[in-house]
Amino acid sequence: MKDLKRTKIKHLLQENEVGQTVNIKGWVRTKRDSKNVVFIALNDGSVIHNMQVVADPNRFGEELFKSIHTGACLSVTGEITPSQGSGQKVELAAAQIEVLGTADPEQYPLQPKKHSLEFLREIAHLRPRTNTFSAILRVRHAMAYAVHKFFNDKGFFYLHTPIITGSDAEGAGEMFRVTTLDLHNLPKNEQGGIDFTQDFFEKETNLTVSGQLEGELGAMALSEIYTFGPTFRAENSNTTRHLAEFWMIEPEMAFYDINDNMDLAEEMLKYLVQYALDNCMEDLEFLNQRALEEEKNKKQEERSEMSLLERLRFVVENDFQRLTYTEAIDILKNSNHNKKKKFQFLIEAWGADLQSEHERYLVEKHFKKPVILTNYPKEIKSFYMRENEDGKTVAAMDILFPGIGEIVGGSQREERYEKLKQRVQEIGIKEEQVWWYLDTRKFGTAPHSGFGLGFERMILFITGMGNIRDVIPFPRTPGNAEF
Amino acid sequence: MKDLKRTKIKHLLQENEVGQTVNIKGWVRTKRDSKNVVFIALNDGSVIHNMQVVADPNRFGEELFKSIHTGACLSVTGEITPSQGSGQKVELAAAQIEVLGTADPEQYPLQPKKHSLEFLREIAHLRPRTNTFSAILRVRHAMAYAVHKFFNDKGFFYLHTPIITGSDAEGAGEMFRVTTLDLHNLPKNEQGGIDFTQDFFEKETNLTVSGQLEGELGAMALSEIYTFGPTFRAENSNTTRHLAEFWMIEPEMAFYDINDNMDLAEEMLKYLVQYALDNCMEDLEFLNQRALEEEKNKKQEERSEMSLLERLRFVVENDFQRLTYTEAIDILKNSNHNKKKKFQFLIEAWGADLQSEHERYLVEKHFKKPVILTNYPKEIKSFYMRENEDGKTVAAMDILFPGIGEIVGGSQREERYEKLKQRVQEIGIKEEQVWWYLDTRKFGTAPHSGFGLGFERMILFITGMGNIRDVIPFPRTPGNAEF
Repeated sequence: MKDLKRTKIKHLLQENEVGQTVNIKGWVRTKRDSKNVVFIALNDGSVIHNMQVVADPNRFGEELFKSIHTGACLSVTGEITPSQGSGQKVELAAAQIEVLGTADPEQYPLQPKKHSLEFLREIAHLRPRTNTFSAILRVRHAMAYAVHKFFNDKGFFYLHTPIITGSDAEGAGEMFRVTTLDLHNLPKNEQGGIDFTQDFFEKETNLTVSGQLEGELGAMALSEIYTFGPTFRAENSNTTRHLAEFWMIEPEMAFYDINDNMDLAEEMLKYLVQYALDNCMEDLEFLNQRALEEEKNKKQEERSEMSLLERLRFVVENDFQRLTYTEAIDILKNSNHNKKKKFQFLIEAWGADLQSEHERYLVEKHFKKPVILTNYPKEIKSFYMRENEDGKTVAAMDILFPGIGEIVGGSQREERYEKLKQRVQEIGIKEEQVWWYLDTRKFGTAPHSGFGLGFERMILFITGMGNIRDVIPFPRTPGNAEF
Repeated sequence: MKDLKRTKIKHLLQENEVGQTVNIKGWVRTKRDSKNVVFIALNDGSVIHNMQVVADPNRFGEELFKSIHTGACLSVTGEITPSQGSGQKVELAAAQIEVLGTADPEQYPLQPKKHSLEFLREIAHLRPRTNTFSAILRVRHAMAYAVHKFFNDKGFFYLHTPIITGSDAEGAGEMFRVTTLDLHNLPKNEQGGIDFTQDFFEKETNLTVSGQLEGELGAMALSEIYTFGPTFRAENSNTTRHLAEFWMIEPEMAFYDINDNMDLAEEMLKYLVQYALDNCMEDLEFLNQRALEEEKNKKQEERSEMSLLERLRFVVENDFQRLTYTEAIDILKNSNHNKKKKFQFLIEAWGADLQSEHERYLVEKHFKKPVILTNYPKEIKSFYMRENEDGKTVAAMDILFPGIGEIVGGSQREERYEKLKQRVQEIGIKEEQVWWYLDTRKFGTAPHSGFGLGFERMILFITGMGNIRDVIPFPRTPGNAEF
């Protein structure tokens, strides 16, 4: 019996195995003692629910149970029996219990009580053992898998774009330097500056802020590619929406115009939400309940009109609202919110950059659904976006989600060599940094488009969590690189 | 007809669409002119084969074809017809040709002739437009997808371990520093050293060399996890087997001993190879042919005994040879190779570290199949590997592949708190760097195992390529961080 292969608790709760003798292994969530029976809730991370282990203290002796506390790791063999209690259909009648690892209740930080999210961040190495974080990590896994499945099924190719880059052309924010130079003894060149030719890559290098430019190179050969990798921003932003290290999904497609681009992005977002509804319902139900309880602590006017599950279903069932930047400015300028000066930044004229408060107004107050904004003024957008016929806007598109803000940003790319070269010069990017990017417009150029999805923002939306630090296993933020 | 939706060439070559009018878009590989007919081989990256476009020069006028050269991007609409030629079943009778982008033959570097792999590395932004590199990138995509599918189907969870890390405990090699300090004006602390509390993370940080330690944290809550992310080594190794930036797959499993670990690794490798055989045969056939031609340039004794496809099938069909380090040392010590001093490093006694020449001898000469070596001397292995009962070996396992060498390295992890703590102290790792790692042994510890697969080494094996720089889109090596 000792060599019985372990069965996952997820399997036992799904299948009817009553009468079978099985072995389970996992971590103790709670233990309840009484004279004639001990109940142990064991969790192995395969599913949010615990297996209730029922043991007769007279059979095992009291000593054994004295060493079993919350957090201990057990191997339990026994028979699956119908449960007497109301919490579960089946339970495990223990015939053999082995303590694989103890957890001293005086020291183990995860006791069966409510811990704050802030405290759990400090013990990010243990928080996956809580219901909330194990649910988030399982959903995160399912979403990553769904991303790959969505693109693979469509014939896209996953392209690993470089993490260390010698170009800082994207200019999306401050970058982290990557170096092997000895900071205590920096080599000098003849001009008295730092001699970066002695650095590992013989020049200055940084961590990438986006795989887009290299992704376009792939699309201009393989037609449809996507990236899914870590990206970095060295911004000193201590908000609930920013991380210094986060994961991005960036598809790039030859022969797509801005409308094809929007269609793909909307289809992908709906696919991901539907995949979560189809494959993660137990975790989503738990997170839904969790969010409802959180809401109770909020003032009435700050509460969401929909529950988490309702929001997810709403996204799948409704078309996103598509409108131009110009139309959005009109709506915002004429809104009561603007007239009553409720915006921190009032909308006065065309050309204004939209702040998060404006995006939220459009999504949450005006349209009450996801919004795709297009055709922004070129001055407030990136150099690689395709200039429209009007000469003043670019074929950009941002997708705004309720509670999240911008979740996707994309554009049709400027495929015309002369136009792109001119923009590169206007912005002041050195051509030696982007010669390879310009080359794709010189040799066999084609209309093409792409977008970026911030993976953690998507997980925020799917899980209903409020802080981006809680949807990535080990968050990196200013001052935080523990674990 | 102009608004006809584009069809991928892969689809047209697979399905019988004779008689259909379709639109294709892609890049010109070759053009052959004659008085009454022009043949254009168009490739869109969806598949290795081209679609042959047949056009009547009298219908389109000669001017059009003067602007069409290798590398140009075209949109062609026409009827799918049975091909007259022998190279393909169907071809496209052009009714409408639009040049989306030209490619000046005086400037475009990818002309239809044989280019060296070295030259193609210098134009890595264009090399995906060659047969060889488009095949490699499609295979690479398929392998990445297969990795996710394999683990997802088994109930493993994909865990994103951090890229920027404050710990250098793994000690697998030299690391890249990550910093936002101004190197031209480094802040000093009171002792006159560099004040790293002013750096972004308020301490010294590096790029990760492995996600294993954090992966174990996930396994000790979710049971079975895997990572798949970039890892970094700042080693000055200019070999055909080393990159400064490469992708690793690192599963970690609670409740697995070293044998379960080997079983999983062997199953995974066979699954990946079988997936390639099932899903990438057209690309593999091309790469097989390519490798055969390469072989012709080699001396007889350096040629492989098997072709690429034979090697792939061999791996799927044969059990890997499992033996202990001690048994391997006996074989090597008594080999004719050792006696005739053909090894650069002669095997004299137990305890010697195995060099690549020894591994290749075992795999390619002695067993002629993949080999799993186990139970290495603890002195030559990492601190986290579980000490065996003999007190001198650890439960490590390395999988060695023909032509590749080590493709997988793993072990059962030391789960005993006191043993691990002792090793940490012996090696001289500071406890404040790994307190969180030790915590998992203190609270609910359990036997567990894991391994790492170098993704690019796997792609080398699957594609039969000889240089690791050719199986990643944009290789990073000493002095190279272009694109």
